Amino acid sequence: MARTFTRSRFAAPRLGWLLVVLWLLGALAWAGCAGPTPTGPEPAPPTLSSWQDGPAKEAIRKLVEQVSRPGSPTYLPPAARVAVFDNDGTLWIEKPQYIPTLFEFDHILRRAAAEPALREQEPYRAVLNHDFKSLLHRPVLDIVKMFYATHDGQTQAAYEQEVDQFFRTARHPRYKRSYLDLTYLPMVELLSFLTAHEFQVYIVTGGEVDFVRAVSPQIYGIPVDRVAGSYVAYQYQETDGGQIVRGGLVSFNVEAAKPANIQLFIGQRPVLAFGNSDGDLEMLAYTAGRKGPSLSLLLLHDDAAREYAYQKGAEKALDTARERGWSVVSMKNDFRKVFAFEP
Amino acid sequence: MARTFTRSRFAAPRLGWLLVVLWLLGALAWAGCAGPTPTGPEPAPPTLSSWQDGPAKEAIRKLVEQVSRPGSPTYLPPAARVAVFDNDGTLWIEKPQYIPTLFEFDHILRRAAAEPALREQEPYRAVLNHDFKSLLHRPVLDIVKMFYATHDGQTQAAYEQEVDQFFRTARHPRYKRSYLDLTYLPMVELLSFLTAHEFQVYIVTGGEVDFVRAVSPQIYGIPVDRVAGSYVAYQYQETDGGQIVRGGLVSFNVEAAKPANIQLFIGQRPVLAFGNSDGDLEMLAYTAGRKGPSLSLLLLHDDAAREYAYQKGAEKALDTARERGWSVVSMKNDFRKVFAFEP
Repeated sequence: MARTFTRSRFAAPRLGWLLVVLWLLGALAWAGCAGPTPTGPEPAPPTLSSWQDGPAKEAIRKLVEQVSRPGSPTYLPPAARVAVFDNDGTLWIEKPQYIPTLFEFDHILRRAAAEPALREQEPYRAVLNHDFKSLLHRPVLDIVKMFYATHDGQTQAAYEQEVDQFFRTARHPRYKRSYLDLTYLPMVELLSFLTAHEFQVYIVTGGEVDFVRAVSPQIYGIPVDRVAGSYVAYQYQETDGGQIVRGGLVSFNVEAAKPANIQLFIGQRPVLAFGNSDGDLEMLAYTAGRKGPSLSLLLLHDDAAREYAYQKGAEKALDTARERGWSVVSMKNDFRKVFAFEP
Repeated sequence: MARTFTRSRFAAPRLGWLLVVLWLLGALAWAGCAGPTPTGPEPAPPTLSSWQDGPAKEAIRKLVEQVSRPGSPTYLPPAARVAVFDNDGTLWIEKPQYIPTLFEFDHILRRAAAEPALREQEPYRAVLNHDFKSLLHRPVLDIVKMFYATHDGQTQAAYEQEVDQFFRTARHPRYKRSYLDLTYLPMVELLSFLTAHEFQVYIVTGGEVDFVRAVSPQIYGIPVDRVAGSYVAYQYQETDGGQIVRGGLVSFNVEAAKPANIQLFIGQRPVLAFGNSDGDLEMLAYTAGRKGPSLSLLLLHDDAAREYAYQKGAEKALDTARERGWSVVSMKNDFRKVFAFEP
């Protein structure tokens, strides 16, 4: 048959082009379906572009490769790739004051305004008079209990409304911005990077759990059920179609409470943990103690120009990190940008 | 140009076929990428094929449509589509005895064998002598506390190993099968059906949380962090690279504790709740009380032939369901099959 084939001068180029076009359409169809979102082009995979190249970034890449590359001898199925992050000072700013504490001040002022009789009681009196000295001689746990007790009897709905209101109005004294803008860009990138590598990413914070849940989906892409924090006794009441009412402190989620609450909320030992203070030490040690690869990281606040420089409250964690070879991440040297709003 | 086109007798059909083949390849490429798994054909979407057509199945379909159809006035984003399921008697069998209780019996016998001195103490004595009468005059909460106390000081790793061992060996007295086979097929289908409609599906059980976590991924496709249950005080110890040690009961997750623990573990009010006993009443009421559509379902054990027929412990829930128009699901009438192993 081939030898009887005769070409038209015009048919061949025309059909040739048609073949090329059809081939291109086919190729485009293939290219379009490489990603998990068949209805649109694949978004670029998250990178760590605001991290400087260096040992911290390298350690992160290495751990991710060790547990997620198929065929790796230390491969873990996605369900076992647990990563935990402290929040205050690790994912967002904690100076000059913890954001959850500022919310409690706000709440106390609001309540004292509504119920003048409270003004003579602690902690209302101290906060109204800016007399923090009289508070701070107490153990931290007592202060937290005292603050949380000001919500005793508050409905969960009212609490959530108050948290929303706080975030709508509060501004950072130095940056003159919403606290929602004061997350660390490289850390938010890291959350996305780990999620893209099918890690299960959680916040394990000393902050009150519902306070952080109010913003975690928006600012971190972390769903509310992936936040473990300090928590109060919830009580269910039948009234008004059923409601949750808040009680006193049950768990102040710092130090040894972090691994314990990781068991309660998450149910597995993490592979990667990131903290910044002595309150994270046990979580970092628990993670480092797992059999197989793990990565414990400590964020060092050493950048007074772009953020703050301080080591107070992190001395023990820093010493331990250096002793045990955990990754100390320098905000100054490892972060190309600290905040997304930087030029 | 067109008018100067001349056809070869052979060229036209050959090129025509080539075009058809290329077009087909392109079409196949498109078809291959319709699903979320570009590397293989799309699996069939989960159906409720072991449910009889009837009001229960209809109510489920309606609720799913109300909250997940784009453009529906009661549409919810996937993150807010929370569904909660009781476990014992709702997802798997609870007769002739709760499976978590059988595990505790097993544990008690094991411990008493290792430490003969325990044989004179409760609850060891009662369990060794099958003297359940002397246990059952106590409030249920006391019995649970007593059982959980037998694990006081046990490491989490040892506990998990014991749970695994239990599931490998225990057999149901009637069906002569592993308890892992004694999940209700229509319920497992419903979990998949809701997950396919981007619901966030959780187990909220009176059983001990880590006991259920040991099997929930395998038998229900529910990850360990989506199980809320009764829980003990966990303690973190630095020894051996860090470990969790179990303490006494903190929360017995029944009745009013269920909505409270839904707030703690999940952080949102459910849209759909499924239970089978008075212990689920508050969870069902809390779900029914949300603003907007919701579905509260109660499984009625009325099938002595295929499973068991009993209403004891569910009287109040059944009365309330009928009063408030919740869906009562009849195992006899609504389940085409109860267990996957049925012919």
